[in-house]
Amino acid sequence: MKLYDGGKAPNPRRVRVFLAEKGIEVPLVPVDMGAMAHRGPDIAQKNPMQRLPVLELDDGTVLTESVAICRYFEELHPEPALFGRSALERARVEEWQRRMELDLFLRVAHAFRHTHPAMKDWEVPQVAEWGEANRPKVLDFLAFLDGELANREFAAGDGFSIADITGMIAVDFMKPAKIQMPEEFTYVRRWHAQLAARPSAKA
Amino acid sequence: MKLYDGGKAPNPRRVRVFLAEKGIEVPLVPVDMGAMAHRGPDIAQKNPMQRLPVLELDDGTVLTESVAICRYFEELHPEPALFGRSALERARVEEWQRRMELDLFLRVAHAFRHTHPAMKDWEVPQVAEWGEANRPKVLDFLAFLDGELANREFAAGDGFSIADITGMIAVDFMKPAKIQMPEEFTYVRRWHAQLAARPSAKA
Repeated sequence: MKLYDGGKAPNPRRVRVFLAEKGIEVPLVPVDMGAMAHRGPDIAQKNPMQRLPVLELDDGTVLTESVAICRYFEELHPEPALFGRSALERARVEEWQRRMELDLFLRVAHAFRHTHPAMKDWEVPQVAEWGEANRPKVLDFLAFLDGELANREFAAGDGFSIADITGMIAVDFMKPAKIQMPEEFTYVRRWHAQLAARPSAKA
Repeated sequence: MKLYDGGKAPNPRRVRVFLAEKGIEVPLVPVDMGAMAHRGPDIAQKNPMQRLPVLELDDGTVLTESVAICRYFEELHPEPALFGRSALERARVEEWQRRMELDLFLRVAHAFRHTHPAMKDWEVPQVAEWGEANRPKVLDFLAFLDGELANREFAAGDGFSIADITGMIAVDFMKPAKIQMPEEFTYVRRWHAQLAARPSAKA
């Protein structure tokens, strides 16, 4: 088994953090996204969407999409459970994984990809107005999240889950997207600081 | 238990189709999205994101996000399995659920919400250029999907899954978004016709 990795990019990092939380070691194959190597024939042959990460099993089976790769490892190594345990917990993790993905991470990603000069060849066409429109939407979601985190430790409840990992990579992605975390969101700041202090955050 | 439902809108429909495939009956509470009732205090109190559907359990527990509600029912009623069975199947369903969601459904939704005059008060600001930019991206994904469906019956493999449901509601959403399905995508057309012929499609 090997994981074609994309360095600093958020989706490859999400899988590395997940694996670190699980205590699983998978051989990494570095792919230079800065040099657009993920759009070259080697990766395109494995993942026609030309995105990283890509997991290749020993029999050649290829699995793509960061959360799908995480779920595969969750099934193989159920402990610690990062997608919830009971029916309601699993649904709650899915609810928050979706919110973190669609209402936070994607908004940050659109702000970044549609306004950053370095993304000109990645996001075609860049629509600056759309990129800018996402900035206040990010803050709207963080205000909602702040109210939620006033009442509990982690996104989906009292236990750490993949929803926290997605939230962390989204918040960290705010820096290149040039969106500042407002001082007033004290619960989001407490939550993020706690996640950033876990050894997995360095993965 | 009751499900606050939103009629024709894609996310409420996704859950109804899922329940129909499972053979589960849940009392529906209709909410008039045309009259913006999902943004009124009743729904906002249950779901601060002001979106439908919303599932309310008998003890008052509220669960939001269509796919999270589906997963809850999958856990309670595992048969027929609509999120896969083995580790690899579950990961494959997640992979295709994500592709159908992020690369098809969201693109169609953005084309619709950012260009349709009736969405002016829903999507603020409407960015017409971004709406238009999504149309060719929808067709790009359908071309990829067509190649995949040449080799198998359903999105994630030989079995029907939630990824097919998400794909179907996305394709059906192309009509109000005014995106035509090209004649040449014969495998996508075969797949969609087969899904549309299932009794669940009328849910």
